[in-house]
Amino acid sequence: MNYCTHCGTSLRRGIPEGDDRPRYICDSCGTIHYQNPKLIAGCIPVWQDRILLCKRAIEPRLGYWTLPAGFMELGETLPDAARREAREEANIEVEIESVYTIFSLPHISQVYVFFRAHMLEERYSAGSETLEARLFREDEIPWNEISFETVYRSLRLFFADRKQGIYTFRMETIAPDPRRMRGD
Amino acid sequence: MNYCTHCGTSLRRGIPEGDDRPRYICDSCGTIHYQNPKLIAGCIPVWQDRILLCKRAIEPRLGYWTLPAGFMELGETLPDAARREAREEANIEVEIESVYTIFSLPHISQVYVFFRAHMLEERYSAGSETLEARLFREDEIPWNEISFETVYRSLRLFFADRKQGIYTFRMETIAPDPRRMRGD
Ligand SMILES: [Zn+2]
Ligand SMILES: [Zn+2]
Repeated sequence: MNYCTHCGTSLRRGIPEGDDRPRYICDSCGTIHYQNPKLIAGCIPVWQDRILLCKRAIEPRLGYWTLPAGFMELGETLPDAARREAREEANIEVEIESVYTIFSLPHISQVYVFFRAHMLEERYSAGSETLEARLFREDEIPWNEISFETVYRSLRLFFADRKQGIYTFRMETIAPDPRRMRGD
Repeated sequence: MNYCTHCGTSLRRGIPEGDDRPRYICDSCGTIHYQNPKLIAGCIPVWQDRILLCKRAIEPRLGYWTLPAGFMELGETLPDAARREAREEANIEVEIESVYTIFSLPHISQVYVFFRAHMLEERYSAGSETLEARLFREDEIPWNEISFETVYRSLRLFFADRKQGIYTFRMETIAPDPRRMRGD
């Protein structure tokens, strides 16, 4: 951050009065430019005994398999965002069920929210950020080609819970442990 | 948003190639300035049969009672943010328990996350954004002086659940219905 979005003046890094951490401050118009973590919403789209994954057509992790998910837009609810991403990435209509996993990734200031969802019909195709969309049974999941730890973890929990017959909501922190990270 | 934070050039509003909604675009350095919803984290601090509320020393809703909550900072997890806000607003140390309520407020592009929490000792005082911190039994809650619908709703659910002996996680959308809004 170099310039004020409001007036175009060069920004100064400093601790505003009454605050306790450095911010980008505009001495010309007085605006303090706060920076905030970003929210990513997605879902686990289920069709009968299978779940849908998308092969990424974009970096990072191009060619790896992922759940439909992406940055929440202004004016959306969390379920809105998850539904839109499913539509954009796999051309599917889903009914969003309950929240399933929430991950804080403090090292990159992101929060992921995944819902369970079911597909309204067995019809899907690759969206513009997807090379291929495909339904997988549990024994077909390409565990070594999963894009991100948040996706990997959600899928592992999902199949374990499905065996038990009960889906339990989880909130977890994902640290930048290289053994656990996929991407980022 | 008028100027590019990166290079200071005037921004243009337009739909980037491959996108489907207008963004702020810098034609000089090529940066697309995405805008995203903001996350607010807070908690319901419990001490024995009472919960702690803070009387707001700042606008909006100055003088109204609220739960400790505020914008999540870069580098935090959701529980980190809730713990920090409790410390800043009421000088309390809390142990964060499970997530309790999540609200999407699409009309102001915010997402609220409240945790249940318990206070580690019966000691509290007003932080700099607080006029007064106080413990309330259920029959003492100033229901007509609660700051925000997210707080009101979380408290109502909390006391109803407590009677049942089981706390159920909820995700809801709060619409800008004037009968339901407190503040904003
Ligand atoms: Zn400025
Ligand atoms: Zn620029």
